[in-house]
Amino acid sequence: MKKIEHIGIAVKDLEEANTTYAALLGAENYKTETVESEGVSTSFFKIGESKIELVAATNENSPVAKFIAKRGEGIHHMAFAVDDIEAEIKRLEAKGFQLISKEPKKGADNKLVAFLHPKSSNGVLVELCQEAPARPS
Amino acid sequence: MKKIEHIGIAVKDLEEANTTYAALLGAENYKTETVESEGVSTSFFKIGESKIELVAATNENSPVAKFIAKRGEGIHHMAFAVDDIEAEIKRLEAKGFQLISKEPKKGADNKLVAFLHPKSSNGVLVELCQEAPARPS
Repeated sequence: MKKIEHIGIAVKDLEEANTTYAALLGAENYKTETVESEGVSTSFFKIGESKIELVAATNENSPVAKFIAKRGEGIHHMAFAVDDIEAEIKRLEAKGFQLISKEPKKGADNKLVAFLHPKSSNGVLVELCQEAPARPS
Repeated sequence: MKKIEHIGIAVKDLEEANTTYAALLGAENYKTETVESEGVSTSFFKIGESKIELVAATNENSPVAKFIAKRGEGIHHMAFAVDDIEAEIKRLEAKGFQLISKEPKKGADNKLVAFLHPKSSNGVLVELCQEAPARPS
C-alpha cells in the first residue's frame, strides 16, 4: 500500500455535493465520470497526493443507492494505491482478508480496482487501485 | 486544506484492529495514545503523507462507543491538515458550514482540532487539524 488514493463519499445529489466540496476544499473538482457498469456518477477533487471521489447513484439498483437508503450519505469506501493489484490480492487473501471479487476490474479514473469485504476490515469497504496500463496506440 | 491528515476508524477492540490493519497496510502502527478527555484510545499507522487512526472507546459514554452502538464499526471521520485552524474555521463558517465547536481544542497526536457537523458535509464528520505550536522550553 503506497498511499491513500482516494476517499469515496456517497451523496444523493452530485451537483449539490460538488458545490459543497468545492467550498470545503477551496478548489473545484477536476473531472466527472459516469461508470454505467457500476450505476454511478462520480466527481473528483485533488487534495495533496490523494483525491476525494463523490459518488452518486444513476439508478435505484446501484450499490450506492442501497448504501444511502440504509445508512444515509457519508463515507462509502477508502481506496489505497498499489503497484501490482494481483500480487496485493494474493497477499491479502493469504492474510485472511475476504475479497469481494478476486479478479481486478476496470473502475473510474482509469484504474484497475478490487474491493475487500468490510467484514474483514472493521466495517471499512477497502478498495485497491492500480493505475491501468496505457491502451495500445 | 493541504492534504488528508488522517482517516479515523471506529473499532471495538484496539488490539485486534491493530493486528488487522498492520496486515492490511503491511506495516506496524507507530504509536498509541489515550485521550481521556475524549474517552478514546487511538493507534496510528503511516500511509504515504497521511495516517490511519484507529479509535476505540475507553468508556461507554464516549462518542465513539455511541457511534459503534448506532452504526457499527467503520470510518468515523476524515481529517484535513490546515496551516491556520482559526482562519479556516472562519472561512468555513462564512461559507455556511456548521462547526461543532468554534474554538479549536487539543486532540491526539499533538494537534489543534475542530470538527464540522456531518449535516453540512453530506454525512461526513470532517476534522480540521493544525500542528500544535511547540511548548515553550
